[in-house]
Amino acid sequence: MLSSSVQAVSLFENTLVLLDQRKLPNQVQYVSTKQVSETAEAIQTMIVRGAPAIGITAAYGMVLSARQHLIANSTDDAETALKGLHFDAKRLRETRPTAVNLMWALDRMLDCVERHFKDITNWNDDTRQTLFERIREEAIAIHQEDINACKTMGAHGAKLMPAGACILTHCNAGALATGGYGTALGVIRAAYANDSSVTVISSETRPRLQGALLTAWELTQDNIPTTLISDNTAASLMAQNKIQAVVVGADRIARNGDAANKIGTYMHALAAQAHQIPFYIAAPLSTIDMDCPSGSSIPIEQRNHDELLSAYPEGYDVPVHFTNPAFDVTPASLITGIITERGVAHAGHFEPTFKQWFAQPSALQSLSV
Amino acid sequence: MLSSSVQAVSLFENTLVLLDQRKLPNQVQYVSTKQVSETAEAIQTMIVRGAPAIGITAAYGMVLSARQHLIANSTDDAETALKGLHFDAKRLRETRPTAVNLMWALDRMLDCVERHFKDITNWNDDTRQTLFERIREEAIAIHQEDINACKTMGAHGAKLMPAGACILTHCNAGALATGGYGTALGVIRAAYANDSSVTVISSETRPRLQGALLTAWELTQDNIPTTLISDNTAASLMAQNKIQAVVVGADRIARNGDAANKIGTYMHALAAQAHQIPFYIAAPLSTIDMDCPSGSSIPIEQRNHDELLSAYPEGYDVPVHFTNPAFDVTPASLITGIITERGVAHAGHFEPTFKQWFAQPSALQSLSV
Repeated sequence: MLSSSVQAVSLFENTLVLLDQRKLPNQVQYVSTKQVSETAEAIQTMIVRGAPAIGITAAYGMVLSARQHLIANSTDDAETALKGLHFDAKRLRETRPTAVNLMWALDRMLDCVERHFKDITNWNDDTRQTLFERIREEAIAIHQEDINACKTMGAHGAKLMPAGACILTHCNAGALATGGYGTALGVIRAAYANDSSVTVISSETRPRLQGALLTAWELTQDNIPTTLISDNTAASLMAQNKIQAVVVGADRIARNGDAANKIGTYMHALAAQAHQIPFYIAAPLSTIDMDCPSGSSIPIEQRNHDELLSAYPEGYDVPVHFTNPAFDVTPASLITGIITERGVAHAGHFEPTFKQWFAQPSALQSLSV
Repeated sequence: MLSSSVQAVSLFENTLVLLDQRKLPNQVQYVSTKQVSETAEAIQTMIVRGAPAIGITAAYGMVLSARQHLIANSTDDAETALKGLHFDAKRLRETRPTAVNLMWALDRMLDCVERHFKDITNWNDDTRQTLFERIREEAIAIHQEDINACKTMGAHGAKLMPAGACILTHCNAGALATGGYGTALGVIRAAYANDSSVTVISSETRPRLQGALLTAWELTQDNIPTTLISDNTAASLMAQNKIQAVVVGADRIARNGDAANKIGTYMHALAAQAHQIPFYIAAPLSTIDMDCPSGSSIPIEQRNHDELLSAYPEGYDVPVHFTNPAFDVTPASLITGIITERGVAHAGHFEPTFKQWFAQPSALQSLSV
């Protein structure tokens, strides 16, 4: 099923297994649970991170809920079971209030629940088991569709990478953040699978160091040759012709193609343009917000300066101010192409391409999480 | 004598006092010595850093040497005393073999020693005391001239800063690296003295964090309002019109105006150009290498990746490669002006201006360290 040796979220029988990303790369430790309450806590405490991975985890949380209310509590009537499922969905929904994929995944799971409850004429062990199976299949489908979308994205993106390219990426848009293949790292995985002379530069991504702690670890797990740099080194390497392409993820894309992503992405995009190096965003269609006209409408989260302090000597107490935005906006004019599961939107054509994609839904579109 | 409350190097009577920069900002701890051997060790172990500050420290080291050989060892003959002074100069010279200012300062101190030894016709307590005083005065002159050069630079540079500017700087080109006023931070000090609405953004400067540990501390000691950011945040702040000028130091400037400085400087210069923000280098004339035709001739020091690891969790052991250059080269085409103690060289005129300066030596030129 997977082409990455890294798996952030898995369901084994009735046990949800999550890779504890807070402990990477020093400890590869998995957390397993059969309880929906523990699943919610795992999302809340960021054992799992990355919007698609959170959505998949919540969907599996609903499988644990279904097991509880439909199989374990076998004496419950239909109404009580349905109430229990809704209660658990609410609990999961509250874990990360701004995560769009979480809401999308839970809505889809509840749609499935409601649809199959309606069909039941006789509430017994068999129908409860069937109902449970349908819910389980839906969650697995959400997971599989995410992997498929990433793999399709990877195939589209790999074609754009120059032969033997050294590809710069920033933050972690990998298997760890998705169902198991990654968006930007999905493109890199596919490019490397086609051409083993491809190499990667991961910028460490201050202040939380996702490039060093997650991306470098994830890529080297798959033996993809990776070089780690401080964020401020990329431009200099571009000047020395040591980088041939940039591929990053996105948190939100406005309909004009402006893209919000991890702080530092904009700096890399400016440097790429100055050196005429192609700069790509890889993200599922669900990241494109057609209600958002441009980057200036995307709110930028300001985070606590403790994130900066974590790299300074303990007790750092200089009476300085801090500015610590989590994201920046890369204007469409700096983006060579936006790689999605529907294909690639090219510079100068972002808005018409997006409109075309959304006007002509395909099977794949509904698959994106 | 000083307009900065921070003093990296001071001579009090016969005691050399050095601020231990390795412990900043958590501990403001001074190391004092009367021994030239301990002075050499202080340079070697980086208690003092920054090329001009190292030169001044070595000059004061020669004062400690003179005190030993001319005053304390009062029974030594002239030849033995001179031998002792040369021996100590050699010891100091070996501490940091690539530091140009160190060699320059020691050569100047030995010139002074030789010149005055020649004048002595009668070797007695009085002539030895006079000789010691001449050596002491020469060292103080080197220190004072550095401060004067920085202040002149500051005055030239301050005129270039827009009213109420928020000025971005990178690494530490401040009082800590010089005799007590700074090059880039000298410009900022002078601009702030003229216009108290000036503010500063210091980029933390991975991997060694000089921006966070030294510049933020140094500026806030003088109550200059300073905001600390991760290096990758500057471009985004420029896009929001939150930065009006960039001023940084330089380690070496080629005769065409290409400038080598701390890694990350080039990235800031690219971002400044993209946002039409003026980008200035502040450095003494001694930084300009007329034998170096362009930036491609400047060797770039590659440093150990332990510097990157220092911010990662202990035991970080991902099988990744590292690239950790200490410097990058900003091409002359991105530099609005180069601020020196002789004046400002402007874009498009770097080489002719430098040639003019070096062809017409002024009193000030010889003052630069």
